[in-house]
Amino acid sequence: METFGGIEAGGTWFVCVVGDSERSILAEARFPTTTPEETLGRVVAFFREQNRVLPRPISALGVACFGPLELAPGSPRFGCITTTPKPGWAHTPIVRTLQEALDVPVTLDTDVNAAAIAEGTWGAAAGLDNFIYLTIGTGIGGGGVFNGQPLHGLVHPEMGHIRVPHDWQRDPYPGACPYHGDCFEGLAAGPALRGRWGIAGESLPSDHPAWALEAHYIAQGLHGLICTLSPTRLILGGGVMQQAQLFPLIRAETVRLLNGYVSSPSILEGIDQYIVPPGLGHRSGVMGALALARRRS
Amino acid sequence: METFGGIEAGGTWFVCVVGDSERSILAEARFPTTTPEETLGRVVAFFREQNRVLPRPISALGVACFGPLELAPGSPRFGCITTTPKPGWAHTPIVRTLQEALDVPVTLDTDVNAAAIAEGTWGAAAGLDNFIYLTIGTGIGGGGVFNGQPLHGLVHPEMGHIRVPHDWQRDPYPGACPYHGDCFEGLAAGPALRGRWGIAGESLPSDHPAWALEAHYIAQGLHGLICTLSPTRLILGGGVMQQAQLFPLIRAETVRLLNGYVSSPSILEGIDQYIVPPGLGHRSGVMGALALARRRS
Repeated sequence: METFGGIEAGGTWFVCVVGDSERSILAEARFPTTTPEETLGRVVAFFREQNRVLPRPISALGVACFGPLELAPGSPRFGCITTTPKPGWAHTPIVRTLQEALDVPVTLDTDVNAAAIAEGTWGAAAGLDNFIYLTIGTGIGGGGVFNGQPLHGLVHPEMGHIRVPHDWQRDPYPGACPYHGDCFEGLAAGPALRGRWGIAGESLPSDHPAWALEAHYIAQGLHGLICTLSPTRLILGGGVMQQAQLFPLIRAETVRLLNGYVSSPSILEGIDQYIVPPGLGHRSGVMGALALARRRS
Repeated sequence: METFGGIEAGGTWFVCVVGDSERSILAEARFPTTTPEETLGRVVAFFREQNRVLPRPISALGVACFGPLELAPGSPRFGCITTTPKPGWAHTPIVRTLQEALDVPVTLDTDVNAAAIAEGTWGAAAGLDNFIYLTIGTGIGGGGVFNGQPLHGLVHPEMGHIRVPHDWQRDPYPGACPYHGDCFEGLAAGPALRGRWGIAGESLPSDHPAWALEAHYIAQGLHGLICTLSPTRLILGGGVMQQAQLFPLIRAETVRLLNGYVSSPSILEGIDQYIVPPGLGHRSGVMGALALARRRS
């Protein structure tokens, strides 16, 4: 049986798994994200130990990583974390380090593109060629698969930072994004909920007016993504989307904002299957890392 | 020498060309867009006559068409114009009609996706795999190439209809989009210029304050497209973009709005080569139709 390694490289934890092509997990470990040397040292030690005890070593490694990342194949910095404010991690050559230490092909992508790939392989977008995975939590990030390929370009999408209309009369909160103030993330991620209402989102009652406003901003963001990418499904994950009451509000508001312009039955009649939660729950990231490795091999 | 047919199917004119793979045009004709029967009848007659006089008949036909279009290969309406308000044209099976009459493979795409493909084949994006072509004129439409493929999905992009922030104090004009009011197209296409200032855009002097506001809205739209798609180049065509003074204003405003968030040298140092006019001018559409045929053959 062929086995694969996956790393969900987050700002707080690195989660490492070994799995097979049927998505069974054979081993898992997690390490706090400290310095690159220490964290990657532990990661390498974990996979070396696994290679020793497995019938045969892992054949590829996938890394679902916090960004920004350099993913342009021709770039001298290809496979590096670039300008992250996370202390010590800027310009870390994560692909080269792991490739040299473990002698396997390493595929790197953003945590959200990897989650999208996992959802397309085993989750809520299985069988689809064109869809978006959006996480709404401490920040907002989006990944996508188009024509069956993850979406890359100049760098990679930063869907949380699109601009959305902001009605200052209805919502005088100025937004929390240090770069753009009231961009989508600035108005709708977790810190905006806390900043606007003085209390964390998870402590607000489910019938609080906060949720109608939150659904409005999320629908504005989805409106932009639908008009730009025309996805066949939108998967919404992350901490804020644990508030299940948001889904019907977001669906209704998205249909209202599009106002019949995109005349597809998926939107006009099937919105419940168009805007959906992740099929893999909070495991999208780590399963995405495995899916990256599996695609490569 | 292999030859190809191309049709730029617009709301006012149908432009038909025969060309070779080196982009030389061997014949061209244009017909006003009347009923589907009459217009497509003239198109078919033109290509039949060309097939008679050419050393060998055209080997494929590309159609760059006004939308919306059904482009999902599995759909029973694949290859049709769908819900256009253009009288008589809704639900026209343009691919089937031409394929049956001319007995060649027919490739249909939106006028803007075709223009993007032409720019990527012979124009301002030659050699690039990930870029956007945006036309700003009577309306705003966008096409894109990602991983070398035109961007399709549920339907096709409608980039003109993304939402952008609207400062009602600075600009009390409510927007001209019949579906969304003050979406990107509603605030920045030609009719908005006329509606806001009471005079057509082409009659406004080049130092009129209209252009700073126009550049602001276009930059808001580009900000959204850059964060969603991370294109390696943005090509801006269409009637409004004939106002060459807009380019430096748009470039500066886009850099200001992104505020260093997308830390790519293409934006921070090379914005003059990042936001550019079309390489093929107003010929992007018809050359795009030829490029569609050439890809297919």
